[in-house]
Amino acid sequence: LVKVAVAQAHLEVGDVPANISETLRLIDLAAKQNAQIVVLPELANSGYVYKNKQELIDALADIDVLKIWKDKSKELNNITVAGFAEVQGEKVYNRSVIIENGKILDIYTKVHLFNDEKEIFTPGDSPPKVIQTSIGKIASMICYDLEFPELVRLVAENGVELLCVPTNWPEGSFNRSINEPRPMELIKAMSAAATNRIWIALSDRCGEERNISWLEASSVIDPDGWPIAQVGTGAGIVVADIDLAVSRDKSLSPKNHALNDRRPEIYK
Amino acid sequence: LVKVAVAQAHLEVGDVPANISETLRLIDLAAKQNAQIVVLPELANSGYVYKNKQELIDALADIDVLKIWKDKSKELNNITVAGFAEVQGEKVYNRSVIIENGKILDIYTKVHLFNDEKEIFTPGDSPPKVIQTSIGKIASMICYDLEFPELVRLVAENGVELLCVPTNWPEGSFNRSINEPRPMELIKAMSAAATNRIWIALSDRCGEERNISWLEASSVIDPDGWPIAQVGTGAGIVVADIDLAVSRDKSLSPKNHALNDRRPEIYK
Repeated sequence: LVKVAVAQAHLEVGDVPANISETLRLIDLAAKQNAQIVVLPELANSGYVYKNKQELIDALADIDVLKIWKDKSKELNNITVAGFAEVQGEKVYNRSVIIENGKILDIYTKVHLFNDEKEIFTPGDSPPKVIQTSIGKIASMICYDLEFPELVRLVAENGVELLCVPTNWPEGSFNRSINEPRPMELIKAMSAAATNRIWIALSDRCGEERNISWLEASSVIDPDGWPIAQVGTGAGIVVADIDLAVSRDKSLSPKNHALNDRRPEIYK
Repeated sequence: LVKVAVAQAHLEVGDVPANISETLRLIDLAAKQNAQIVVLPELANSGYVYKNKQELIDALADIDVLKIWKDKSKELNNITVAGFAEVQGEKVYNRSVIIENGKILDIYTKVHLFNDEKEIFTPGDSPPKVIQTSIGKIASMICYDLEFPELVRLVAENGVELLCVPTNWPEGSFNRSINEPRPMELIKAMSAAATNRIWIALSDRCGEERNISWLEASSVIDPDGWPIAQVGTGAGIVVADIDLAVSRDKSLSPKNHALNDRRPEIYK
């Protein structure tokens, strides 16, 4: 079994040093519970609700968050997956990094930008890579990416066992009634897990930024689609023991296979 | 607004005349509540749990269920969408028909066969067509088809407003706990509706056939993904007033569009 942690963070727009400290606090919390891998939210160094690109660039200053996370990962000998904002030249990117024992194994740039992100970030042009780590095959996509079944299918076909999803899910989409225990964003994530028979570790936000609050839906979802662990309300982590071998069994019945039953020649 | 009915049927394996009578009873019930369109389950003429192909062929005899449904649709001037088994030569097909006012507008053959269906039926080789009817653009796919996001995406791209889904959802898949109010099959359907911003009218089964019981999950699902009407327990119908124009608004935010935000060049 693998011990996976998802961290739900309270971040402050504009205060990058405080946000990085908060990520280190959560990474340490996960390590204390012997998590081998910890997933942090989208834009964990910066927070989300910037007025424009320049405000974000100013906030980021030249603080090297990747070095800080690499050092921490080496200290703990863990895997860290985290979303972060990165400036390169005139452009800013919404990215996630996979670090194992101090080494960067992959950096992914968000392909599907949500709402005002389109005014700030430059989208990526490549799908997430599936990375062999010491615990198994993992990949990362970011928030709204997960609402495109095509992208999840692609990483499933490429053998992902645990999909790590840094998110910032704002409250208020999809006209959820007060009687619905789960937001539609989580229902889409559950469906994505079940459809492809993969594990999903999803790290969301809590608190409020400039009048936007967050769904606090950080969860570990099993290959049948059920959330088996959730952080709940507020900042913190949850750790789950998961068997990645389950995700390699794609059977939906004795005669059905989640991936091989596809009929790609018909989907045109 | 359009009045759409979904019918949940109790069918008997081997008794085609009784099954057809039951479909007519449910179609009449829907008409009494002024439904303009009624959706019936998968294999509504035959029932589901046949031991082999020959047993099903024998049960079907030469009863022309399409003529019976066409006559009823003409009598009521309604739209009927229903699943049925059909013999052609040596082959048997799992199909659905769209009938309006006595005329067959389309027949679709199930593309993704589930479990022992593979021993009985010949799969289809074409995706569902989107059909212009008097109420709007509809299409039909059958049961396990809905678990392939690629197929739902295709009919959404082709402009479907209301996707009609005859199903026979057996109990017992996906390790549902007793605390889960909805089965994963329904969660996948909700995700499919929300991901593509379409209406889904889903007709399931009730009762038991040869020790297989059914999820009784017949529902009308809105383009935000929420079930707004459900039949509940037992045989019967539910009618919902729905606005198909909602499905033509693909906005997920002021700057996001459920279909146009796709990046097909990346999903390869």
